[in-house]
Amino acid sequence: MLSKTHAKYIQSLHHKKFRDEEGLFIAEGGKVVLELLESGSFVCKELFAVNDWLQDNEMTIRRSYSGAFETVTEMELEKISALSTPNQVLAVFYKGIKVPIDIKGKVSLMLDMIQDPGNLGTIIRIADWFGISTIICSEGTADIYNPKVVQSTMGSLGRVNSHYADLHEILQQHKTIKAYAAALNGKDIASIKGIKEGIIIIGNESKGISPSLLELAGEKITIAKKGNAESLNAAVAAGIILSHI
Amino acid sequence: MLSKTHAKYIQSLHHKKFRDEEGLFIAEGGKVVLELLESGSFVCKELFAVNDWLQDNEMTIRRSYSGAFETVTEMELEKISALSTPNQVLAVFYKGIKVPIDIKGKVSLMLDMIQDPGNLGTIIRIADWFGISTIICSEGTADIYNPKVVQSTMGSLGRVNSHYADLHEILQQHKTIKAYAAALNGKDIASIKGIKEGIIIIGNESKGISPSLLELAGEKITIAKKGNAESLNAAVAAGIILSHI
Repeated sequence: MLSKTHAKYIQSLHHKKFRDEEGLFIAEGGKVVLELLESGSFVCKELFAVNDWLQDNEMTIRRSYSGAFETVTEMELEKISALSTPNQVLAVFYKGIKVPIDIKGKVSLMLDMIQDPGNLGTIIRIADWFGISTIICSEGTADIYNPKVVQSTMGSLGRVNSHYADLHEILQQHKTIKAYAAALNGKDIASIKGIKEGIIIIGNESKGISPSLLELAGEKITIAKKGNAESLNAAVAAGIILSHI
Repeated sequence: MLSKTHAKYIQSLHHKKFRDEEGLFIAEGGKVVLELLESGSFVCKELFAVNDWLQDNEMTIRRSYSGAFETVTEMELEKISALSTPNQVLAVFYKGIKVPIDIKGKVSLMLDMIQDPGNLGTIIRIADWFGISTIICSEGTADIYNPKVVQSTMGSLGRVNSHYADLHEILQQHKTIKAYAAALNGKDIASIKGIKEGIIIIGNESKGISPSLLELAGEKITIAKKGNAESLNAAVAAGIILSHI
């Protein structure tokens, strides 16, 4: 049985402050948890699951995890879950090791204040699809270890290195690497194919890229519009841009 | 003051059954409500807003709406809202008039069991961006008048005609129009540019396109993958495909 103190401790990991202090994060749902275990990118600390799920997946788990796991009831799972509909399993992982920012000779993503966790998770998944290994986030961007981000990365979290940094500084330190800013009035992305090295900047869901950052970008790029929608979702825009270059 | 009966009636519109019976739907949030009012695509029946918002927007509203509006407290708004964080205004609209399905001489979208309301809303917004005027949804696809769909269309709802139909029948009735099925092992979308007429089929978030429908498609198309992600979000995939053709 899950003790009250233990449940409270897991709940505290819903908050960035405690995740940072403890160096831990939680992942939920069978698909995400299994993918993270199998990816080998993160070390699992403990795992809570309902009985049915454990029975179906114990063999698979044991291939990559030798730690403790605890059977919980659906009600107990609900208590520790960050989801509105808890999903059979919740695992606590140690955060990944920080690697140096590496953007030379490749295409990287830069996110300026992406605030919706679902958008951030989807962007990490898109980056993984297109083989982008580095994402640099502004301080105001959602936390990659937010449970909703982890959920929507679908296991791509460990395959993409995400950093939090002052984006202005990064651009100023790497003036030889061209930065492309996704904006409403730039060059059609269809005309800028085959980039081998570059930084693609995606801005906030409603405000776009901050003006001071936009000034540091070498080129503004745009997804050609034929209809009347005012904007595209930030993750959709990232996907379209990466698919073209 | 909002009566209990009236609040209950609005709440009932959170459910498809009642929306269908009443021919009504609700839209929430200043941006979406104003866009729908101004688009002229839907007639507004009644509008509930907090005082501050009404004062700021009364002039704008009056340009396109002559009906009743009621000032509500934030607590009253919370009662009738379908959102976890209610957003200043909620309006009840009459559903749009059904127009015949028109897919000749243009590119249209076909959605096979898109179940997440956020994905459906984002796809409608993408269609509007790329000038796609017709979307045909399978019966199992989310309801376009679901409050979360309305929310995520960002006002594009009235500019794209959405239909619910048996997708197999539609494809069989229009054999001269080529159908392109988004799949994991098809022709690279980068090689099929410049389509003037066609149907792009997007499948369910986890299961993809149903096998029987896939058989009726003329060609399978794929977004080339360079990394390791297992899949792309359905809305992101729709956006990428439409941006290429």
